[in-house]
Amino acid sequence: MERERRTHVPVSISARHLHLQQEHVELLFGKGHELTKYKEISQPGQFACNEKVTLKGPKGTIENVRVLGPLRKHTQVEISRTDARKIGVAPPVRNSGNIAGSASITLIGPKGSISIQEGCIIADRHIHMTPKDADEFAVKDKQRVSVLIEGAKGGVMGQVTIRVNDRYALDMHIDTDDANAFDLKGNEWLKIIAD
Amino acid sequence: MERERRTHVPVSISARHLHLQQEHVELLFGKGHELTKYKEISQPGQFACNEKVTLKGPKGTIENVRVLGPLRKHTQVEISRTDARKIGVAPPVRNSGNIAGSASITLIGPKGSISIQEGCIIADRHIHMTPKDADEFAVKDKQRVSVLIEGAKGGVMGQVTIRVNDRYALDMHIDTDDANAFDLKGNEWLKIIAD
Repeated sequence: MERERRTHVPVSISARHLHLQQEHVELLFGKGHELTKYKEISQPGQFACNEKVTLKGPKGTIENVRVLGPLRKHTQVEISRTDARKIGVAPPVRNSGNIAGSASITLIGPKGSISIQEGCIIADRHIHMTPKDADEFAVKDKQRVSVLIEGAKGGVMGQVTIRVNDRYALDMHIDTDDANAFDLKGNEWLKIIAD
Repeated sequence: MERERRTHVPVSISARHLHLQQEHVELLFGKGHELTKYKEISQPGQFACNEKVTLKGPKGTIENVRVLGPLRKHTQVEISRTDARKIGVAPPVRNSGNIAGSASITLIGPKGSISIQEGCIIADRHIHMTPKDADEFAVKDKQRVSVLIEGAKGGVMGQVTIRVNDRYALDMHIDTDDANAFDLKGNEWLKIIAD
């Protein structure tokens, strides 16, 4: 008898945000500054910070962009294509952490500003899950799957990356462009339909 | 021998815009005012006007929204979900012309402003074509099809309405949310994959 696969995942909408390396925290918020927690977010150990920056590109700025903790080895800015067009930058679609050759952008904090040569990306659509989840969904780490969306602006999101780690909570992350195009509010359960 | 179907359609991105009835032209731009042509657009007989308005909702405004001509019997405002969230209105996804019970919104012109009880929609994804095109694509007026998009943010747009009229030019129209979510620039040819 074939084992029944799990198929449905909850979806969350990631607004624009950034991760910082300590050196950049200090350049933006002052020497010796440490990130302060505002609230927990869906992935265990991750948190929204009280700290916010302004993003600046050749065509404009976006204010009040929240920093997420904990610290990273390399600063990474995640925005949508809509954001990118507004400020005139051209980030590639990438997995988190894959920033080599990605877009440059300027960050402005209360104590200073920095221009990073690379680190600005549009995060790929992805699903966090544990090894146990992966087994039940019959998928593997780094596999790309498709996800079905019902409704008047329904369709299929392709190129959704599976990310497996025993610290992850089951959650699909999409950006605000995907949410708005498919008319999702971020409280839906969506069906994985292909692998 | 089965006849080969045509499959590919050019895509264009529709930014927010509105169509006006004459009574509203006069309320916004002055008694006796007639719309003036700025430039032709892709559908024969349709044109962008020099006239622009400000859209106002409970949470904010969007300035410089262009009027399209010719006049319509009923004023209709077409925005994206991103726009709608910004100004705090909640338009339904609709075919052009189907405005009964759609969202209310306020229009501000240089000579006056009006609040319309209904008429604000998110335009459904649709493909304009002639009867000859429809025959070659083997589709019918009002039929819903799906369209394939390749690339790092690829997938399938569902619920795409076929619109057949002998005055139409072959063109798929999507809004800026769909364009940005699927990373389209508006110069692509996309494949109809299901009916």
